[in-house]
Amino acid sequence: MGWGDLGAFGEPSKETPNLDQMAAEGMLFLDFYTASPLCSPSRAALLTGRLPVRNGFYTTNGHARNAYTPQDVVGGIPDSELLLPELLKKAGYTNKIIGKWHLGHQPQFHPLRHGFDEWLGSPNCHFGPYDSRERPNIPVYRDWEMIGRYYEDFKIDLKTGEANLTQLYLQEALDFISKQQASQQPFFLYWAIDATHAPVYASKQFLGTSQRGLYGDAVREIDDSVGKILKHLQQLGISENTFVFFTSDNGAALISAPKQGGSNGPFLCGKQTTFEGGMREPAIAWWPGHIPAGGVSHQLGSVMDLFSTSLSLAGLQPPSDRQIDGIDLLPVILQGKLIDRPIFYYRGNELMAARAGLYKAHYWTWSNSWEEHSKGIDFCPGQSVAGVTTHTQEEHTNLPLLFHLGRDPGEKYPLSFASEEYQQAVEHISGLVQQHKATLVPGQPQLNVCDQAVMNWSPPGCEKLGKCLKAPESDPKKCSWPH
Amino acid sequence: MGWGDLGAFGEPSKETPNLDQMAAEGMLFLDFYTASPLCSPSRAALLTGRLPVRNGFYTTNGHARNAYTPQDVVGGIPDSELLLPELLKKAGYTNKIIGKWHLGHQPQFHPLRHGFDEWLGSPNCHFGPYDSRERPNIPVYRDWEMIGRYYEDFKIDLKTGEANLTQLYLQEALDFISKQQASQQPFFLYWAIDATHAPVYASKQFLGTSQRGLYGDAVREIDDSVGKILKHLQQLGISENTFVFFTSDNGAALISAPKQGGSNGPFLCGKQTTFEGGMREPAIAWWPGHIPAGGVSHQLGSVMDLFSTSLSLAGLQPPSDRQIDGIDLLPVILQGKLIDRPIFYYRGNELMAARAGLYKAHYWTWSNSWEEHSKGIDFCPGQSVAGVTTHTQEEHTNLPLLFHLGRDPGEKYPLSFASEEYQQAVEHISGLVQQHKATLVPGQPQLNVCDQAVMNWSPPGCEKLGKCLKAPESDPKKCSWPH
Repeated sequence: MGWGDLGAFGEPSKETPNLDQMAAEGMLFLDFYTASPLCSPSRAALLTGRLPVRNGFYTTNGHARNAYTPQDVVGGIPDSELLLPELLKKAGYTNKIIGKWHLGHQPQFHPLRHGFDEWLGSPNCHFGPYDSRERPNIPVYRDWEMIGRYYEDFKIDLKTGEANLTQLYLQEALDFISKQQASQQPFFLYWAIDATHAPVYASKQFLGTSQRGLYGDAVREIDDSVGKILKHLQQLGISENTFVFFTSDNGAALISAPKQGGSNGPFLCGKQTTFEGGMREPAIAWWPGHIPAGGVSHQLGSVMDLFSTSLSLAGLQPPSDRQIDGIDLLPVILQGKLIDRPIFYYRGNELMAARAGLYKAHYWTWSNSWEEHSKGIDFCPGQSVAGVTTHTQEEHTNLPLLFHLGRDPGEKYPLSFASEEYQQAVEHISGLVQQHKATLVPGQPQLNVCDQAVMNWSPPGCEKLGKCLKAPESDPKKCSWPH
Repeated sequence: MGWGDLGAFGEPSKETPNLDQMAAEGMLFLDFYTASPLCSPSRAALLTGRLPVRNGFYTTNGHARNAYTPQDVVGGIPDSELLLPELLKKAGYTNKIIGKWHLGHQPQFHPLRHGFDEWLGSPNCHFGPYDSRERPNIPVYRDWEMIGRYYEDFKIDLKTGEANLTQLYLQEALDFISKQQASQQPFFLYWAIDATHAPVYASKQFLGTSQRGLYGDAVREIDDSVGKILKHLQQLGISENTFVFFTSDNGAALISAPKQGGSNGPFLCGKQTTFEGGMREPAIAWWPGHIPAGGVSHQLGSVMDLFSTSLSLAGLQPPSDRQIDGIDLLPVILQGKLIDRPIFYYRGNELMAARAGLYKAHYWTWSNSWEEHSKGIDFCPGQSVAGVTTHTQEEHTNLPLLFHLGRDPGEKYPLSFASEEYQQAVEHISGLVQQHKATLVPGQPQLNVCDQAVMNWSPPGCEKLGKCLKAPESDPKKCSWPH
């Protein structure tokens, strides 16, 4: 989902009354970022509070390449990483993930081995259907074991876009919350629904209800579900004791537009890029009785801050034996403070850009290669800014491209290198970057090796279902990451 | 000002708390249009309820050219046109215009000859400063006579952007409203401020207050002023008896970006074009006690509707001896109805596009000529959609380019000519266009002839001020309209 997909963020169809209401009752973040322009690294960052380059969710197979966890990837979240649910356990929290995990699908990466107590969802994206020979369909897990596979047992109709998964995930969320309330046990719910990820889907009752087509139907169903979850918290009388945050893991995937792609509002490009359209996210904090209604914040925020903020809410300290990139947003949320901190825009192993205040400096620019572009893969459809949306990787380390995101949110007008404004801003940002790089200890890259043998052939529980498939011979290779 | 310039419409700096509040208390129109992608024709349409091609605010000097009323234009609003204030007079209204008139500056076009009772403002844009030889500075009028000239008596500092005109216009508005309330006389106030028109300006107290630079400062001052006007109505106890509508006359002028140009949100291109960025406008209706708070409408609306709606509010019938293009929006505003009606996108003498429902058909596409574009004049900076943002005038009459504005508000993905959806939608829209064209009686074009002798050399009142200038010999020529 992109920054521009909610009514509160200016989507012209304005079809998200529940999320808009959530913002009206809570705090809207206008300058909130993901830690990577695509899914797996972004989610790993959210749960570890650390940049993907630290927690291993990147590749060194190529320079500045986007990598994630397809079925044949060998890596996943390392045991050495401390995930938010692992830490929350110490404070008595029950932790549940509903939906897409995406931090690796081999047994050692299972979410219940990394702090979660319960799971309903899948380890990978819901691509498919597959033929079970070249590639198995993605399993859906309940806790430790699979309970079926997408397309086989969990239908997604690619023709109509119909799938009832969001309803399934909604019901699971409501039940979990009820159970926790009944037992008076604190909980952390990571509701990681994925209806707006291609192939986009919606339940029958939402199909055709949006002005925006199937993508809008999916957004409407998510909006409706968020409304039901918030209402449930209120009806159970625990809304003033439950902190809720809504955000996304990357900008709208414009390659899937117009049928399956969303909106990044006035920003440049989309998912896969380190322009604002790829990494600035819709974000809303909600906590009635604590967050003043109708708040708006320009705090530079990050999904990684949800790690630190959640720990703070639970009265826990962040780990002191490692670098945590997230910050505690409670002073921002509860007292309206603004914390000075930069945003780093990584693409794979490269720091492409950095933002401090309203200035953003690009050290590298790249949309995608000419080769990919000529195949019709376009991360910036209808947009082209000379020297900015480049189709070769352009280095600007010595003379970064500088934008003022207040005057120029669309990153169209680089500041003159000769201006005093440029010199002051670049000096400041480059100082922060230098400091960051000097202390950076990159993690072991997890997304380098792919092997057809590691695919979801025989996930735990497959025997009971008669759904075990025979894995092919192991044939480890470098994963191919063209973007 | 563009669709995307208000916080309520998704401007990322969200710096318009008063307009956002106005929307929260009133009704937000998301599909509201001007009648022309630039100033004079749009304003003529607003005040006559008629398309510029009917009321004469267009040129036939070239095909599909944007024309307005610079100082040397000979034409203006014809006497045969009935303006909103002329009609409102019959119901006892006192009518005032504050700010830019732009319907002609020769004596016969003076606003007080066309229904207005009072005026503080100028007949033309605040371009300048001029040297009084080649071109006089633009006069500022109080009622029938000038009281000074821009740059000479009404300072605009082009270096700092400082000018206190919005404050002057605000105070005048507050005073007028007070006076009308005191005398219990109904009033129509046309508050036509122009701080966001290049050269953009703001008062000292607003300079440097916006994240968006000078343009944002101007928007903030307008926002603050609107807040003060609404508060004034409330304090006088007449807010429930006063209908207020906020809108703009064209999309943000992207040629002036980033320093002096605003935002059209997710839409394509800007001022001067018939893409959504050129003609879709921010629009808010406010009438406490009558309009339900927080309303949102997808009614296809037009500035011309303000003519018909105002007449309806005053209990008057629209003229029956001529075609009125505006419709009465009261059923929409008060009862939430949706009225089926098309939007026609004119550029000069050509119907470039038409919208019905969510479909928009382009019969002609043109951004500007290669010749102009090569001079750096770009109405679509950073945007380029092959076959859509064309630099030659491309006719598509036989096979219009069709967009679905719900799925594709950015006009990037023309529908396939072969699809059933295309055929049905085009048949419907083209039927409406045919009907429209069949009955259209174009008015005498007013913007064809220019003459240096008609400039504001010696406006009425200049003698008292010692500000009469000698007009050069008359030398009528065809006006040059390159866009």
